[in-house]
Amino acid sequence: MSRWRLMIEYDGGPFVGWQRQENGPSVQQAIEDAVFRFCGERRSVQGAGRTDAGVHAAGQVAHVDLARSFAPATVRDAINFHLRPAPVVVRDAVIVEESFHARFSARNRCYRYRILSRPAPPALERDRVWWTPLPLDVAAMAEASAVLEGRHDFTSFRSTMCGAASALKTLTTLRVTRSGEEVVIAAEARSFLHNQVRIIAGTLKQVGEGRWTPADVAAALEACNRAHAGPTAPAHGLCLTSVEY
Amino acid sequence: MSRWRLMIEYDGGPFVGWQRQENGPSVQQAIEDAVFRFCGERRSVQGAGRTDAGVHAAGQVAHVDLARSFAPATVRDAINFHLRPAPVVVRDAVIVEESFHARFSARNRCYRYRILSRPAPPALERDRVWWTPLPLDVAAMAEASAVLEGRHDFTSFRSTMCGAASALKTLTTLRVTRSGEEVVIAAEARSFLHNQVRIIAGTLKQVGEGRWTPADVAAALEACNRAHAGPTAPAHGLCLTSVEY
Repeated sequence: MSRWRLMIEYDGGPFVGWQRQENGPSVQQAIEDAVFRFCGERRSVQGAGRTDAGVHAAGQVAHVDLARSFAPATVRDAINFHLRPAPVVVRDAVIVEESFHARFSARNRCYRYRILSRPAPPALERDRVWWTPLPLDVAAMAEASAVLEGRHDFTSFRSTMCGAASALKTLTTLRVTRSGEEVVIAAEARSFLHNQVRIIAGTLKQVGEGRWTPADVAAALEACNRAHAGPTAPAHGLCLTSVEY
Repeated sequence: MSRWRLMIEYDGGPFVGWQRQENGPSVQQAIEDAVFRFCGERRSVQGAGRTDAGVHAAGQVAHVDLARSFAPATVRDAINFHLRPAPVVVRDAVIVEESFHARFSARNRCYRYRILSRPAPPALERDRVWWTPLPLDVAAMAEASAVLEGRHDFTSFRSTMCGAASALKTLTTLRVTRSGEEVVIAAEARSFLHNQVRIIAGTLKQVGEGRWTPADVAAALEACNRAHAGPTAPAHGLCLTSVEY
């Protein structure tokens, strides 16, 4: 039996999320089915980040155990062949130590949230960015992001449905940068709470539009109450870019 | 009567191309219909580049004459409102001189062709890039592109259906660069022949994969025969990025 680490890219649009669910197609299920069609082994595929419905990934990581031996390129290409036409691909497949666990071994998860700020809505990137017709004050957003970086009780910034035992998390990086008409929020942490990046993005957009000040964000964090933070930004602007081990 | 210059972005996927045709929806028709629904005027919209079916645009330019007076933001927003849900948007609308003609006044048209070169097919950019699992020799592609830059008879690099009287064209810029896993071909000229950029992209990819040498490309150009150049690259990798006046 070998443990394989897969690096996975997907368009989250048609899926109920990473995780297998009763109510529709999941990325996890798509990969498990492709593995089965490829080698006849019915295996569970464990992902590093349980992305929500509609959230994309450029560098999700998962592991799977296979009894038979294969060349790495065979695993990658055969799973990709059987994944078609779903918008999911294995970018890379490598054999790792048996102790490797995609979820529990992860040291850092990196997300990117893209906001398009211009008068016209997007045509080319419509399923990849959150559009606002308003100009955004990136300096104010960066100032507010500094309030959230670090170790905090993020109760205000997690879904009321979040099942994590503790809301105490360390946001190692939260950076806001402009790239042409886009404002990009980069967030990195060992682990995140449910909807944490999307609530942060929704809150920072309030600051960018001048509705909130960085001090309001500090007060929202202090409040430890979901109702005090901004709205949850839509899923399609979010992408899991990489996972570090 | 005022002449308006529109800057337009679209996903070419669902369209038969820019130009109005009997056999399906065109971008031109979509905009003309939106203009009519907005202000009740049935006008012809003239584009700078007649992009083919499936070709995208980030900065197509068109002009249209409107009898009634409007604020520029009104024209942009109202046309965009009536374009929904088609993946076409007016990025900008400004009043220009009556002598301005989107097609005939254009000094330079800028296209970009994107090739994704990596073992795994694309999931996120699948409708925006031409995928090859093979590595590409960008230096060889750049050398071959230098052969094509400048003023030449491009008979080998135009569709056999091309209706232009002369195949003599000046390719002012042809640049090949790598950006991560992508190889990007930037082509600029006052005007292009039918399928010229796509045949150039298909030919340069042959060079990148080591099937052709830059000398083979020079011989193909010399031959003045479409059969001597490479294949026509697929439409979905091409984007009209801007038009200069």
